[in-house]
Amino acid sequence: MTNTQIKLAKRPVGLPDADTFTIEKNPVPTPGEGEVLLKTKYISLDPAMRGWMNASRSYIAPVEIGAVMRAGTVSEVVESKHPKYAVGDILVGNAGVQEYIATDAKGYHSVDANLAPLPVFLGTLGMPGFTAYFGLLRIGEPKAGETVLVSGAAGAVGSVVGQIAKIKGCRVVGIAGGEKKCKYIVEELGFDAAIDYKKGTLKADMKRTCPDGIDVYFDNVGGEILNTALTRLNMHARIVICGAISQYNNTEEVKGPSNYLSLLVSRARMQGMVVFDYAKDYGIAAQEMGGWIQQGKLKTREDVYEGIENFHETFLRLFNGEKMGKLVLKV
Amino acid sequence: MTNTQIKLAKRPVGLPDADTFTIEKNPVPTPGEGEVLLKTKYISLDPAMRGWMNASRSYIAPVEIGAVMRAGTVSEVVESKHPKYAVGDILVGNAGVQEYIATDAKGYHSVDANLAPLPVFLGTLGMPGFTAYFGLLRIGEPKAGETVLVSGAAGAVGSVVGQIAKIKGCRVVGIAGGEKKCKYIVEELGFDAAIDYKKGTLKADMKRTCPDGIDVYFDNVGGEILNTALTRLNMHARIVICGAISQYNNTEEVKGPSNYLSLLVSRARMQGMVVFDYAKDYGIAAQEMGGWIQQGKLKTREDVYEGIENFHETFLRLFNGEKMGKLVLKV
Repeated sequence: MTNTQIKLAKRPVGLPDADTFTIEKNPVPTPGEGEVLLKTKYISLDPAMRGWMNASRSYIAPVEIGAVMRAGTVSEVVESKHPKYAVGDILVGNAGVQEYIATDAKGYHSVDANLAPLPVFLGTLGMPGFTAYFGLLRIGEPKAGETVLVSGAAGAVGSVVGQIAKIKGCRVVGIAGGEKKCKYIVEELGFDAAIDYKKGTLKADMKRTCPDGIDVYFDNVGGEILNTALTRLNMHARIVICGAISQYNNTEEVKGPSNYLSLLVSRARMQGMVVFDYAKDYGIAAQEMGGWIQQGKLKTREDVYEGIENFHETFLRLFNGEKMGKLVLKV
Repeated sequence: MTNTQIKLAKRPVGLPDADTFTIEKNPVPTPGEGEVLLKTKYISLDPAMRGWMNASRSYIAPVEIGAVMRAGTVSEVVESKHPKYAVGDILVGNAGVQEYIATDAKGYHSVDANLAPLPVFLGTLGMPGFTAYFGLLRIGEPKAGETVLVSGAAGAVGSVVGQIAKIKGCRVVGIAGGEKKCKYIVEELGFDAAIDYKKGTLKADMKRTCPDGIDVYFDNVGGEILNTALTRLNMHARIVICGAISQYNNTEEVKGPSNYLSLLVSRARMQGMVVFDYAKDYGIAAQEMGGWIQQGKLKTREDVYEGIENFHETFLRLFNGEKMGKLVLKV
């Protein structure tokens, strides 16, 4: 029995190439007193992971060269010397891109596997869903009747942002790449309109789909989309800075939003958020979103690939614009 | 008796050249029933006026070509058919760059000329002072012990921001151009430290003078200074976007802050403000700041030039980096 581990071999420049990671097969660790042995069932693939590969200061320490790549996971307890957890329990946490881990389970929480398919705990009922929930409700503060614009709208975060905004009575417009995704967010998720940014008519499309301006812009992408959204802000608009996927693999300097003075004209604010800050309220979010899922108001979608050895190529799917919903690797 | 008027002749590109304005001598208007005839005593020169000369959408309508240039003023009532105002009353409002105006006085308010020298009503007890007061206290929300950084620190707004932040118990660092201004804000206004941005060592100087990071950054200038401040934000920092004087005469696209993702890392916010939104509370600000002036806690400084016909060249002093305090034209 071996433990396949994916380790960070170097700091990538631009899109991580195949040499960025090494695949190692090591012995399965033995849990000590107070520990569990976890077997990884699903690994979460998130755009934020690209940032963790950089050496620069951020909201979390970089992954060290030679360390197992950090990742969110759903795992099963296969051996327990822990007072709280028994064999068969399902734990969500950050076990990283590896098959096994021995841990005292700090930072993990158990979930009820009967509530939802396991990958959902990495998506709508996991970090991306919590990011959408707290980012929209606590920072975006949408009010019924307002227009909410969200980028990366077919993704794990954006798709939840838009659906929660609809639940809250807002007019919701999503930005996504390609006809298939645009159709998905309108026809399956109930968005009021979609903008296909690949068409190259972003400004006109934003004007057409947001005729009354933008009250909340939830930004997952940065770059030209953020800059264009700034030109259509309503008074006292709120921009939630959640991510900037268009900039993560830049080899040049990040492009700043040159229209930022719209914040002054519109007395608007642009505010950054990181989901970890809301950890104490994850339970509230899980309960409310779980209810919405059961009522059919909140739809989840996971894009599941198989095989830990396919981590590198699956990770790149985050950036090639093809995936829909939450990207997950089944181990 | 003639009324000298300065009118906007064209929309300037970059720094307004001499042909941007025309000087006209017209008859003095006659006040109608319910109106006063105001004689302009002091004209306010503000960076925001540069924006009003542009055709583009902003928080206030552009000055029309051929119209008297908009400006804040202190005027004396020289004839009155108005029930509320008598000859000799001093009114503050927006009479524009002209010697006389007949008006129903809507948008004007009378001031007690015994309280302070008249130019102060265009500075610390006028729009710039109110901008500093509300921008810092309502948007910046400084707490005692925090570090407040302000750019344009020797200017009409920045000098008041820094002094109010000191009154509120903050550590205050000002950014200004040149040794003279830096000495002024530290030695005369009581700032804790100054950064001379002309030295070209902005990043190192910010690190040295803000060793504990930045909690509030009050931005009057934009450009590279804003971008550098973004790299030193503390958690939950607040950036007040009040202006961007470095960008107002740009002939190229405004440079956006490429480090804006620090907002995410630091869970910080960047928020625009326009003083007009606080009009109903100007009285509160005037009373509190008047008290600080009397107690010697808040120092005011006006840079007064003479002659309405010198409007163009005096206006340019806003941008040549030489003026200190509030720039005013005496008519």
